[in-house]
Amino acid sequence: MSLDRQARAMLPLIETELKRQVRRLAAPSTRGFHDMLAYHMGWTGTSARKGQGKRIRPLLTLLVNASVGGRWRDAAPAAAALELVHNFSLVHDDIQDNSPTRRGRATLWKKVGAPLAINAGDALFTIAGQATLDLARSFEPAAVLAAAGILQQACLDLTKGQFLDLYHQGARHLSITGYWQMIDGKTAALIAACTHIGALLGGASPAKSQQYRRFGQLLGLAFQVQDDILGIWGEEARTGKSAASDLVEGKLSLPVIYGLRNKGEFSRRWRDAHARASNAPRLRKLLEQEGALEHSTRQANRLTREAVAALRRLRPQGEAGTALEELSAQLLARRG
Amino acid sequence: MSLDRQARAMLPLIETELKRQVRRLAAPSTRGFHDMLAYHMGWTGTSARKGQGKRIRPLLTLLVNASVGGRWRDAAPAAAALELVHNFSLVHDDIQDNSPTRRGRATLWKKVGAPLAINAGDALFTIAGQATLDLARSFEPAAVLAAAGILQQACLDLTKGQFLDLYHQGARHLSITGYWQMIDGKTAALIAACTHIGALLGGASPAKSQQYRRFGQLLGLAFQVQDDILGIWGEEARTGKSAASDLVEGKLSLPVIYGLRNKGEFSRRWRDAHARASNAPRLRKLLEQEGALEHSTRQANRLTREAVAALRRLRPQGEAGTALEELSAQLLARRG
Repeated sequence: MSLDRQARAMLPLIETELKRQVRRLAAPSTRGFHDMLAYHMGWTGTSARKGQGKRIRPLLTLLVNASVGGRWRDAAPAAAALELVHNFSLVHDDIQDNSPTRRGRATLWKKVGAPLAINAGDALFTIAGQATLDLARSFEPAAVLAAAGILQQACLDLTKGQFLDLYHQGARHLSITGYWQMIDGKTAALIAACTHIGALLGGASPAKSQQYRRFGQLLGLAFQVQDDILGIWGEEARTGKSAASDLVEGKLSLPVIYGLRNKGEFSRRWRDAHARASNAPRLRKLLEQEGALEHSTRQANRLTREAVAALRRLRPQGEAGTALEELSAQLLARRG
Repeated sequence: MSLDRQARAMLPLIETELKRQVRRLAAPSTRGFHDMLAYHMGWTGTSARKGQGKRIRPLLTLLVNASVGGRWRDAAPAAAALELVHNFSLVHDDIQDNSPTRRGRATLWKKVGAPLAINAGDALFTIAGQATLDLARSFEPAAVLAAAGILQQACLDLTKGQFLDLYHQGARHLSITGYWQMIDGKTAALIAACTHIGALLGGASPAKSQQYRRFGQLLGLAFQVQDDILGIWGEEARTGKSAASDLVEGKLSLPVIYGLRNKGEFSRRWRDAHARASNAPRLRKLLEQEGALEHSTRQANRLTREAVAALRRLRPQGEAGTALEELSAQLLARRG
């Protein structure tokens, strides 16, 4: 498998670069601070390895970079920056959503309390910015500024998506348009930044870099819709979450928004939060009967087709190109 | 007063630039998000003007810039970035410290809840990064990267200082060395970044910029020690806080750390948090008797002298130079 070979080369370098960046906090007086970030990043603590996640964003960045002919090792600080931004958003998300566990382990705020965890998230965000500036070791100042600008815009989009999510969770309704805006910010913007920055630093033309950006955006949207489906219909053993967990938690995902718009039996039962938590299997059945699963699956398939087509048009080169196609296919066909 | 004339020219430009930056969130779908930032920045809501604070950091940035011969209007995005970072840290601080009011108004998290306020703080931080990149309109890419690097390091120092504060608040003790590390991160690092960046963008040599940095650091340290004294001995009418509020809240300020090290009557009473809150006047008296006020005042005076001497050695030029000396003198002689 090309993916395995490429990943074998890239993943250790990504991890080394991430550790090098986080070591900015390793002085004796802030050792305990460093340890918090190390725990969240999956380097220490129980089930540490699992806590790392899949490092999809930095892998995408480096694969795109190599597939346009870039020297991917030079782009490692950018890959680290994108993963650090992702993790900053996870640390703050978990506080905002009051989530006790992530990837099968206690969330950071559960371990150290919300005040220190907010601060740890802020540090991850800051270090992401510093990692971006480290690109100056291998790239011209103008290229570093371009990468920093793309990353900063993705961060602003992240906060916008998070705002829409938190704001409408309170209001308990969201239009389909609002949904696409929300996941474009919360999920697609950062993945689009990965493929955009990867291509740009690899020497691709601005036009080609924009096309890579579009591929990343489609991949991110497809990924999120599929995540929404798995959050309701995924098998517990594969997803690592309890069955229909998104229904129990009241998450405004695509199937739910479709069901609410339908104003049928599902919609009436959803309004009663107490009934919702205890009736997840019944609600899931109603969503199926009212066509929400079919609609969501159709959307996921459409976006997947568009993402794959966008990538093929780009003709990614060499082993990295093949690996990129495989990674995309795996992400979009996953069942957990 | 030169300060008035310079401030009259600079303050409206600072405000305009801040508003321009925050307008990145003004699209209809994120209007409510924009409104949260506008409230915190003191542009809307009750006692809005008071909520703005004094804009000391951007003012210092521009005054230093002008006093080394820079075209200060070009540096406005940097001044805005520094004020945005300061405000990002205030929004998160208020959540971490559970503070209901700031500058006589409800804190943002009290108005919109902690989840949305964490996210609003993240947006202020992101926009600070974007403002920095806007310097590219007037400066070479290498200069923009230098400014961004100084700002990012100050942000990391901020999170380190915050870590030391939060971490030791739990532990209820802190060495004098730990105290200086903490306020160097929490207060002095960002003010040092203001004077450093202001000088660098004004065309000062790296050596002179470093001296301006040192001036900013001394100013920040003096400012914080004085703040610690006012937090215990300040007059309620002038500080806008209740008398001895830092004692009631159990803040680890310099007088308290000195008193704890002394292991006398103050130290024994301080350990009992309940007695502390109800006995603030008695604790204040003990601190005076045990020499904590005298020690802290000596430290504040020493740092003030050093800051003023550092500035004089730099021979800041023109009206801005005079204004800079006046601003420093005002900050260090304030009683509220």
